[in-house]
Amino acid sequence: MQIRKVKISGTGKYLPTQQITAEEMDEKLSVKKGWVEKKTGVHIRHFVQDETASQMGAAAGKEAMTSAGLTYADIDCIVCTSGTAEQAIPCTAALIQKELGADYSGIPCFDINSTCLSFLTGFDVMSTLVAAGTYKHVLLVASEIASVGLDWAHKESAGLFGDGAAAVIISRSESTESARIICSAMKTYSQGADLSQIRGGGTKIHPRHTTEIAPYLFEMDGRAIYKMTSKLLPKFVDDLLSSASLNMPDFDTVITHQASAMAMRLMARKLGITNDQLVNILPAYGNMIAASIPLALHEAIVQEKIKRGDHVLFLGTSAGLSLGGMIIEY
Amino acid sequence: MQIRKVKISGTGKYLPTQQITAEEMDEKLSVKKGWVEKKTGVHIRHFVQDETASQMGAAAGKEAMTSAGLTYADIDCIVCTSGTAEQAIPCTAALIQKELGADYSGIPCFDINSTCLSFLTGFDVMSTLVAAGTYKHVLLVASEIASVGLDWAHKESAGLFGDGAAAVIISRSESTESARIICSAMKTYSQGADLSQIRGGGTKIHPRHTTEIAPYLFEMDGRAIYKMTSKLLPKFVDDLLSSASLNMPDFDTVITHQASAMAMRLMARKLGITNDQLVNILPAYGNMIAASIPLALHEAIVQEKIKRGDHVLFLGTSAGLSLGGMIIEY
Repeated sequence: MQIRKVKISGTGKYLPTQQITAEEMDEKLSVKKGWVEKKTGVHIRHFVQDETASQMGAAAGKEAMTSAGLTYADIDCIVCTSGTAEQAIPCTAALIQKELGADYSGIPCFDINSTCLSFLTGFDVMSTLVAAGTYKHVLLVASEIASVGLDWAHKESAGLFGDGAAAVIISRSESTESARIICSAMKTYSQGADLSQIRGGGTKIHPRHTTEIAPYLFEMDGRAIYKMTSKLLPKFVDDLLSSASLNMPDFDTVITHQASAMAMRLMARKLGITNDQLVNILPAYGNMIAASIPLALHEAIVQEKIKRGDHVLFLGTSAGLSLGGMIIEY
Repeated sequence: MQIRKVKISGTGKYLPTQQITAEEMDEKLSVKKGWVEKKTGVHIRHFVQDETASQMGAAAGKEAMTSAGLTYADIDCIVCTSGTAEQAIPCTAALIQKELGADYSGIPCFDINSTCLSFLTGFDVMSTLVAAGTYKHVLLVASEIASVGLDWAHKESAGLFGDGAAAVIISRSESTESARIICSAMKTYSQGADLSQIRGGGTKIHPRHTTEIAPYLFEMDGRAIYKMTSKLLPKFVDDLLSSASLNMPDFDTVITHQASAMAMRLMARKLGITNDQLVNILPAYGNMIAASIPLALHEAIVQEKIKRGDHVLFLGTSAGLSLGGMIIEY
């Protein structure tokens, strides 16, 4: 199914109260003043103090319900589309349901994960179920705590990430509405599986067998990722645009994963995305893993950069290494 | 969408070479001879030595492709439906793609997680995409290493679990084939979210902040889970069967999560499932988390307990706390 009569009916966000400026990050990383800002392009990011991923996700979810004019009773599925989990068991979506104060509602909860593309994958997959009538209103939540897994010795990635949550409700479009998903695509090239990774945190490396912290920290080979994606992305985007019979200038707005300032700049140039089209929230939030795309969407909607009837292109890359894209009429 | 013209076109499994008998487990747990067998009903379980989840998953996936008469080139999506991940980043499906030797194939890879119900959730969700024509042949893989997270001080759960993988390929049914999904349902009651959990392994409890091992071990309140599920399950099953206009005796085979011998016995009695209907692989494998349901399916197919045209009921419970069910014609 390519075209789906599905709309984005509401969005919301939650950001931790603690803000860390680029200057504060310079100090934290023991680099000279201005280094973080220049290197990462991130002015401010939020780091959790005692917030949990499920608390942030529930707060973002509530805002999304309000903006959609819906209540929890209208939601019939909760999908957590984070790149990080709150705990190994159970899935984060169940913990979000609990934080929503709806712990005996029975609403099905599960997680969909493709790291930074999790939201886009969840949107893509669940929109097919909404279009098919399985669910009426699906709450997608991406809630990320990147800060706990940052390697402070790897200054380039440590300065880049932020914490926070974004939520999106997808619903079936009414017959009078033009909102729809036009097409979508995903490709995974696991040749690049080790280019960004956290080796621990699963069954392969367990705290029982090592006291080292390093395996539980985020590792990234930015240069190799850039090399691989810049080779793969142009054809991927060409194919996606061809499926929709659209060209880059036809898009009112382009929402990409907020990977890094350099990655976004180079990608925009390579793909012919103008500054007017591109939603750039990186300076105010940093890379928020899978929450970046829905947060950029939320910001673009509340700032009225996206209006009903607009053509919007979503694009992103993630650990895997995966590429993902979707074209919608909002 | 309830009815979906989707079939199970192939299945496979992989079990670690190391087998642990109930007697060996008695010794390991320092209990008197016969205790594990009596308490858990598990004769033998497999524990990994140096196998990884992705290696096991790839091996099971290859067997599933062979049994379906397909090659990797036919597969157009890989979904890992494990309750445990191999590492925090990237998703396990990408690591399975790599182990399949297909690391530049571009086949989309992502994970779907609802702990023990992950396979059933993945089957349910992805069958809608297969029916909609998004994908032709989806490889679902559940590959679990329970052993690394067992709490040896909690003898009842430590004696119960086993490691291994199972894979299932789902494909669109030809017009001449009667195989289809008749209906499915899932319910999550997060009131029971802490009844079975691993508190660590995510962003909430990180090795950076604690040297304790306990948060990374599986915790289960078997009695409370039983109390909660025995209250919720009968109505859940009644509703599911009503949607299909079927009664329990109409099913040739019932495949349940292999939670524990007692849970399966009590559930079967409560729901009127006969021994002839129930697939019981627990004695030979233990509870294999999300791999239990697809492994039971695989075993029932290879042992010709399930034949084309049979009505099969899938049922399970999982951490969350969630209930899941599906009715198919095989």
